[in-house]
Amino acid sequence: MAGKKLLIKHAAELITCAGPAPKQGPAMGDIGMIPDGALLAEDGRISWVGPTAALPALDESQWEVIDAAGQCVLPGFVDSHTHMVFGGYRAEEFFWRLSGTPYLEILERGGGILNTVEATRAASLAELKELAGRRLRSMLAMGVTTVEGKSGYGLDKETELRQLAVMAELNREQPVEIVPTFMGAHAVPPEYKGRTDAYVDYLIAEVLPAVSAQGIAEFCDVFCEQGVFSLAQSRRLLTAAKGLGLKAKLHADEIVALGGAELAAELEACSADHLLQASAAGIAALGKKRTVATLLPMTAFCLREPYARARAMIDSGVAVALATDYNPGSCFSHSIPLVAALAAIQLGMTPAEVVTALTINGAAAVNRADRVGSLEVGKQADAVILEYPSHLFLVYHAGMNLVDKVIKQGQLSWSKADNIDNIHREGKL
Amino acid sequence: MAGKKLLIKHAAELITCAGPAPKQGPAMGDIGMIPDGALLAEDGRISWVGPTAALPALDESQWEVIDAAGQCVLPGFVDSHTHMVFGGYRAEEFFWRLSGTPYLEILERGGGILNTVEATRAASLAELKELAGRRLRSMLAMGVTTVEGKSGYGLDKETELRQLAVMAELNREQPVEIVPTFMGAHAVPPEYKGRTDAYVDYLIAEVLPAVSAQGIAEFCDVFCEQGVFSLAQSRRLLTAAKGLGLKAKLHADEIVALGGAELAAELEACSADHLLQASAAGIAALGKKRTVATLLPMTAFCLREPYARARAMIDSGVAVALATDYNPGSCFSHSIPLVAALAAIQLGMTPAEVVTALTINGAAAVNRADRVGSLEVGKQADAVILEYPSHLFLVYHAGMNLVDKVIKQGQLSWSKADNIDNIHREGKL
Ligand SMILES: [Zn+2]
Ligand SMILES: [Zn+2]
Repeated sequence: MAGKKLLIKHAAELITCAGPAPKQGPAMGDIGMIPDGALLAEDGRISWVGPTAALPALDESQWEVIDAAGQCVLPGFVDSHTHMVFGGYRAEEFFWRLSGTPYLEILERGGGILNTVEATRAASLAELKELAGRRLRSMLAMGVTTVEGKSGYGLDKETELRQLAVMAELNREQPVEIVPTFMGAHAVPPEYKGRTDAYVDYLIAEVLPAVSAQGIAEFCDVFCEQGVFSLAQSRRLLTAAKGLGLKAKLHADEIVALGGAELAAELEACSADHLLQASAAGIAALGKKRTVATLLPMTAFCLREPYARARAMIDSGVAVALATDYNPGSCFSHSIPLVAALAAIQLGMTPAEVVTALTINGAAAVNRADRVGSLEVGKQADAVILEYPSHLFLVYHAGMNLVDKVIKQGQLSWSKADNIDNIHREGKL
Repeated sequence: MAGKKLLIKHAAELITCAGPAPKQGPAMGDIGMIPDGALLAEDGRISWVGPTAALPALDESQWEVIDAAGQCVLPGFVDSHTHMVFGGYRAEEFFWRLSGTPYLEILERGGGILNTVEATRAASLAELKELAGRRLRSMLAMGVTTVEGKSGYGLDKETELRQLAVMAELNREQPVEIVPTFMGAHAVPPEYKGRTDAYVDYLIAEVLPAVSAQGIAEFCDVFCEQGVFSLAQSRRLLTAAKGLGLKAKLHADEIVALGGAELAAELEACSADHLLQASAAGIAALGKKRTVATLLPMTAFCLREPYARARAMIDSGVAVALATDYNPGSCFSHSIPLVAALAAIQLGMTPAEVVTALTINGAAAVNRADRVGSLEVGKQADAVILEYPSHLFLVYHAGMNLVDKVIKQGQLSWSKADNIDNIHREGKL
C-alpha cells in the first residue's frame, strides 16, 4: 500500500480548517466545512480538496479509496503539550492529593516530580522508548498525528539528552510525528536544591549547548512559577536558547499570576501554556504577538483547579490551542475526547473552536502550521475520520473515542475496523 | 475455544469484591484484593480463586491460559442504568443547552426527549437492533459484561415492546447480558399532553399487562420529577408493576427534592437513581432498606448540574452504584473511565469504592448480585483485565480505557491485542 495515492470521498462533513494560522479570536469559528467532501493525496501530500461532486476524473483502480459516507473528516489532531517520555507512575499520589494531603506531606511520602525524575534517570533508553512507543500507538488511535514531547524528567545532561534521543528514534520508526522540546527547567534537581540560579547557569553552560549540538530539540520550555523558576530566570534561559536557534515555549501563570503570559509575548514565544491565572494584560499581550495560548483543561480537571478563561481569551483575539498535558503526575491522560468535552462544557468553547484548537492552532503552537493542522493543497495528508457524521459528536459523545481511521502522510495508519469489528478485518495494516 | 476451561494467573492484583451484597457504606472499601492472584473457570463459572502460589495442580495444556502478570483483574463491570435502545441523535441540542438556550426554546426548535421518541417510533426493530448491537460491542470493549437497558422512547405499546424485543434478541446473539427495564413512564407522549393521569391509566391497563405477558422486562422504572410523574403517579404505576412481578427502579430527586428517595425505599426498589437533590431523610431511608443509590455523574457533568452527595451517602451506610446513564439527550456517553474519574475527582469516592460501585453494587442494582459482580466460586466468570497493575489506574489514568481483555462466562470475548497491536494478532476471536 505504501506510496499508493489516496482518495477520500463522500465525507458527510470535510473540515479543512483552511486559512491564515494561527486562527485568532473569532476566526477560530471558521473551520471551512465542505458537505459531501472529498480529498486526494499523492506522495503524502494533499493534491486536491473539494466537494465530491467536483472531483476530477480519475481511475479509481489506481487509488486507495475510502468512502467516508456518514463520517466526518478532520485534519489530524495536534497534541501540542505533553511530557510523554518518562519512567514510573505516581498513582497513589493522585489519591493523596484528592483526599487533601498537604503538598509537603506528599513530598515526604516520596511523591512529586522528583519521584518521576528518579525513575526516568534509572530507565535505559530502550525502556523509555518501549513505553513511549506504546503511548504513541494509543495516541494515534485517538487521532493524534503530531505530538509535542518535552524532556524535563532528567534534570541532568545525560538523562535530558536520553529523553530527547528517545523522541528522535521514535520519529524514525512510527507514524506519529514528535516535536521535541528541551525542558531541563522543569524543576530544580536535588543536586541544586536551594540554588536555582546555579542550576540555570548549568543548563545554559552545559546542557543547552549539547542539546543544540545534537540538533535534537526544536523548542525550549520553562516551568515559570512562584517557587520554581522566576520570570528573570525564565527570561535568561529562553534568551540563551533562542541564541542557539531554539524556539520558546512557557509554562505560564498556572498557579500564580506571575506575568508569564506577558513574558511569553515579550519573547515572542510560539505558545504560552496553562494560563489559569493569566492577567487581562497578559491575555491582551498574547493576542498582539500571535503567541498561541495552549490550554490544558484535563490538568485543571484532575487537580480541581479553576479552568482557564478561554472565552475571555478568544473574545479578545487570542489564538487558543488545546492539548492534553499528558504526564505521570498532574494529568496522567492523553484523552483527546476528554479535552474536547471539558473545553466545551467547562471552558465554554464552541465545537468549531474546539476543532480549531486541536488542529491548526495546535500546529501553530509547534511551529508546524505551514505543514500540518489543516486540509489544504500542498500540506501533509494527515487526517482523522470519525465514526459519526458531524464534528459536533466530538463533544456531544462525551469522553468517547470516535476515531474510525487515521491517515498519516497519505497512508492509512490506524483503523477501527482492524480493531473492534474483528469480523471485518481485511489485513490492511 | 468454546467450552474450554480458563486459567488466569499471576495477576498483579486480583480484586474479588467478595462478600455480602450490596456493600453498604464502609464495606464499599472492602474489595478483597489478592496479590499475585489466580482464577479458574469451568463451564462459564468460577471454580477456584486465590493466590497463584496456591493453585491446585492441573495440566495447563487442557486450559486456556492467560498470564496476567503486571495486570489487574476485576469483576466485569455492570452498567446498571442506560437508555441504550434509541433512534436518532440530538447533537445540536447539546450545544443549545451549553450556550444557555432556555428549555422552552429548545423544545420549540424540536429538541428534547420527544425528538428521540419520534425517531425511535419511526425506526424498525432491525434498525434499532443494529444500532444497539454496535453500542454493546463498544461497551464490551470498556469492560462492561452486564448492562441494564430501559425502554421509554416509545411511550406507546407497540414501540415500548419493540425496544424490549431488541434487548431480548440481542441477549441471545452477543456476549453482554442486558437486563431489560420497562420505562413507559419516561415522559408523557404528545397524545396524552396535559393528561398525565390518563397516560398512567393507559400504561397500567394496556402496556404493563402486555410487557408482563411477553415476559420481556424484569424492572419497571419511572421518571419521578416535578412536572413529569408525581410521587403518587409513580407509586401507582410501580405498585401495579410489582403486582405483575416486575421489580422497581426510580429516577429520583434529580432536579427537585420531591421525595423520590423516600418513595424508592418505601417500595423497596432495587435502586433509586440520580439523587442529586436527595434529602437527608431520603438518604437515610435508602440505607435502611438496602436500596442501591445509583449515581450518574456523567449526566451531572454534561448538564453542569451539582454532583450527588456520594460521600454523605456512603458515610451514612448507603450502598452506592455508579452507572453511565447512556442516552441521546442528557448524557450521550457510555464511558466507564469517565464515570470512574468523575466519581473520584468530583464525588470524592476512593478507588476501592469506585470499583465496588461499578461491580458488585451495580449487580445488586439489577438484582444479579447472586450471579455476577464479584469473583467468587460458583459465580459467572465475568472478568476484566486491565493493562495496568493496579485498580488505582482506573481513576489515575483519567478518562482512558485501560481494558486489555474481557472475559464473559469464562470465554475471552474482547481483547486489545486483537486491536491496537495488530502485530501481535493470533486470530483468537
Ligand atoms: Zn506541562
Ligand atoms: Zn435515566
